[in-house]
Amino acid sequence: MRIAVLGTGAVGRTLAGKLSSLGHDVTIGTRDVDALMAQTEGPMGGRLPPFSEWSATNASVKVAPFAEAAAAGELVFNATSGDVTLRVLESAGAGNLAGKVLVDVSNPLDFSQGFPPTLSVCNTDSLAEQVQAAFPDARVVKTLNITNAAVMVEPGSVAGGDHTMFVAGNDEAARGVVTSILTDWFGWSDVIDLGDLTAARGMEMILPLWLRLMGVLDGPAFNFKIAR
Amino acid sequence: MRIAVLGTGAVGRTLAGKLSSLGHDVTIGTRDVDALMAQTEGPMGGRLPPFSEWSATNASVKVAPFAEAAAAGELVFNATSGDVTLRVLESAGAGNLAGKVLVDVSNPLDFSQGFPPTLSVCNTDSLAEQVQAAFPDARVVKTLNITNAAVMVEPGSVAGGDHTMFVAGNDEAARGVVTSILTDWFGWSDVIDLGDLTAARGMEMILPLWLRLMGVLDGPAFNFKIAR
Repeated sequence: MRIAVLGTGAVGRTLAGKLSSLGHDVTIGTRDVDALMAQTEGPMGGRLPPFSEWSATNASVKVAPFAEAAAAGELVFNATSGDVTLRVLESAGAGNLAGKVLVDVSNPLDFSQGFPPTLSVCNTDSLAEQVQAAFPDARVVKTLNITNAAVMVEPGSVAGGDHTMFVAGNDEAARGVVTSILTDWFGWSDVIDLGDLTAARGMEMILPLWLRLMGVLDGPAFNFKIAR
Repeated sequence: MRIAVLGTGAVGRTLAGKLSSLGHDVTIGTRDVDALMAQTEGPMGGRLPPFSEWSATNASVKVAPFAEAAAAGELVFNATSGDVTLRVLESAGAGNLAGKVLVDVSNPLDFSQGFPPTLSVCNTDSLAEQVQAAFPDARVVKTLNITNAAVMVEPGSVAGGDHTMFVAGNDEAARGVVTSILTDWFGWSDVIDLGDLTAARGMEMILPLWLRLMGVLDGPAFNFKIAR
């Protein structure tokens, strides 16, 4: 399948690399390809390598401006930082998202007051709902935002994969597509369909607990399981 | 131990009944004992029996006004609705809470716009922190708010007890006391100490997801496990 992954940070790279390794035709989207390739320091304060280094070892992943990447994808992942998500999708272009399943992995984290971040939207709204409202013809499905990038595509790396992922979205068929991707491509064993996109509020509001757990557990190698 | 449980709804009754069955000297606190005993319809729209009925089958649990109950307890559970928590604790009296471990089980749920409720405080503050600020001499520990009353005291009733509870509070020794209560009295097998009371934000912000799951899973017989 032709897949666009918007965002070149840890989440975008991990998703693009995994999808490409599964044989898909993946284009990763960025604001300015030349500027990205010229970067000598990677994101997260240099904890990730510069993109050009990552790209060299993931040569099958194409790199393109947001609009070109989105146009190329039959399916689009939003793996951008929540603070730029709406602007990035505007750059990608409503027409390039229309009718497509848009997998929203982002979180509305506000780091302006330092760490831990607060949420820039929550409780009575969610970033996913804002995306859906801004791009009414996209078929937005919220998922994967509750866990670390490495766990997203290798759930078996934590507790043998015995934990849970959620999907939420207003389009039932789109939720089904994303559930299949999670189970068949990434190996998730327990995917709970939470229904319409208002459920994204709860999925995004779990981040403060996740961030605290990351500190207490000395790293992000964990996930939530719904015991029942 | 002499224990006060403030609140006579599902959570207060369940905690008081369990603690009493363990041999503790339990006083349940309410605003007006006579009015409570005279009620002919129980809370939750009558889904719970009137308090007098519950009391007749839990005769070892004493019933007293908030202040008298709090004064009687060496340990105090706040099992009131979040919308009245601060007023109830004011009635209980700062002097009757000073120096005591105050186990905060409440959630700041706002039902004014119907179901599902939103949170009346979140993101940059929590109800637990508001309680601690209003009663600086109480040793507030947030716990148990993330699950159903029945699961709180019988974690083994869900998935054989293989799931997680959190504690958060500014007083490390108080967190230790509450952790022991959870493990030794109620049977919790996995209690994660999240540290100071700002972690209560995340614990309270999990409620929207919990409420959605309750709908999707057709009832509250589930809990979060931190797979790691």
